[in-house]
Amino acid sequence: MKVLALAFPGFTFIDLAGPMQAFMMLPGFSSQIVWHSKGIVDSDAGVSVQATEDFGSCWKDPDILFVPGNSIHLFKQLQDDRTIDFIADVGSRAKWITSVCNGSLLLGAAGLLKGYKAASYWYTREHLSLFGAIPTDARYVIDRNRATGGGMTAGIDFGLAMVGQLAGEPVGRVAELAFEYAPQPPFGTGRPELADPATLAKTTEIVKQIMPVQELEGVRARRSTMGSSRGRPSVAALPIKVSSSFIRARRRVSNASWLVPQTVSTRNSLAFSSNS
Amino acid sequence: MKVLALAFPGFTFIDLAGPMQAFMMLPGFSSQIVWHSKGIVDSDAGVSVQATEDFGSCWKDPDILFVPGNSIHLFKQLQDDRTIDFIADVGSRAKWITSVCNGSLLLGAAGLLKGYKAASYWYTREHLSLFGAIPTDARYVIDRNRATGGGMTAGIDFGLAMVGQLAGEPVGRVAELAFEYAPQPPFGTGRPELADPATLAKTTEIVKQIMPVQELEGVRARRSTMGSSRGRPSVAALPIKVSSSFIRARRRVSNASWLVPQTVSTRNSLAFSSNS
Repeated sequence: MKVLALAFPGFTFIDLAGPMQAFMMLPGFSSQIVWHSKGIVDSDAGVSVQATEDFGSCWKDPDILFVPGNSIHLFKQLQDDRTIDFIADVGSRAKWITSVCNGSLLLGAAGLLKGYKAASYWYTREHLSLFGAIPTDARYVIDRNRATGGGMTAGIDFGLAMVGQLAGEPVGRVAELAFEYAPQPPFGTGRPELADPATLAKTTEIVKQIMPVQELEGVRARRSTMGSSRGRPSVAALPIKVSSSFIRARRRVSNASWLVPQTVSTRNSLAFSSNS
Repeated sequence: MKVLALAFPGFTFIDLAGPMQAFMMLPGFSSQIVWHSKGIVDSDAGVSVQATEDFGSCWKDPDILFVPGNSIHLFKQLQDDRTIDFIADVGSRAKWITSVCNGSLLLGAAGLLKGYKAASYWYTREHLSLFGAIPTDARYVIDRNRATGGGMTAGIDFGLAMVGQLAGEPVGRVAELAFEYAPQPPFGTGRPELADPATLAKTTEIVKQIMPVQELEGVRARRSTMGSSRGRPSVAALPIKVSSSFIRARRRVSNASWLVPQTVSTRNSLAFSSNS
């Protein structure tokens, strides 16, 4: 089972970790971590991983293509046609096309979710429809050979479900016990409809700053003028266009803190503390 | 908030990812990943991380010391007094001493859990008492400045709880929504008491092979003859002793597959498939 996982700079660490920990249990598991170039790639959580391959050297026909998400760093990738073309190209041959969190926006921009039900991060979910996907309010969605997880921690549910899908339910059941996956969220606020109004308002305020969804229409328009790139990537066909609102948003956000706008010092206070 | 995380070869990837993703949200977050030597360290899940520091160069007084777990690779560290002495030394000054999964066995071997309630992986939990800890059947335990998570995925619950503890509950509530932590385990088998008998029997059979708990009494005896190393590490005071049963166990387990004994090919079948 050849798993090819994209790791772009600033990707959300747990988005990668949940699925990989599960995929590792599949028969004949092997993996490649891929980026524009081989070497160290920083995640958003103070840990860097090794990209073992670049876009030219990696498997062209993996069993599983996996794409993680992030806030501002994901939106940066949505402006990078080399990344999107790469996903479209490998996605045209991969047996399974998968993502966690708003990584599904990258799959969508690559034209891989047209007519498919898909999950995403709660704040970005509805925007999947821009790319022809059917946004689905589920912890994970498996629609034919597209499998997408919801926000961040949904990667564990998604990964275990994929183990059950690919290796059989008895193996999935063993994997879940091996993972000791009997979660007890400490606060009970893990979805917008579960959160108290203050938590929802504060979180939405922060996320809104670092996930510039207003740029997605531009991504859709740009990709649609490029025609289909599936199977034949038009690498760097267009110069990377970075909107001014994206640049403003990026200035507010440090690499390590996807939730902490830079307008507030991250040294001694949290932007989302109770009294801010 | 200086977070020093140990990453030993073969560590369980999700053990590190859950807590780091949460710690990242703490005010003034910065991190170091440490091992015997700087450079690439393989996890157990097909992803390698970068150790940014070695035992000599890292912070001596982090706010948080964090130790992940694993199966056979964790038990290998329990035979390595350089690792245990390092944990004991940093642990003598760290503000918080923390672990996930059976990383608590390393904290215990380092003498850091005497008289403290602590959590661990379900299969290794009771053995914490060998090191003077009080094994606790909880998703995570915070006892004074010791904070320990249960098995693997408990690192998310543990990490979010620590955000609430260190930054205040309102921030913890925001973090949980930001994480979209509203889990839905696909199989409902995530604890021994939840699992059906066949799942429990199969998982126990596998875990028993790769977590040689019978070696823990030897670890305790060896460490107790060394005297207290807290605050003054006796690096390499004793040659590393590797028992023959450990070597046998290691031969059975590949680096990438902590659940798949090597006696069965991982290429085309799973050791724990329903008909094996």
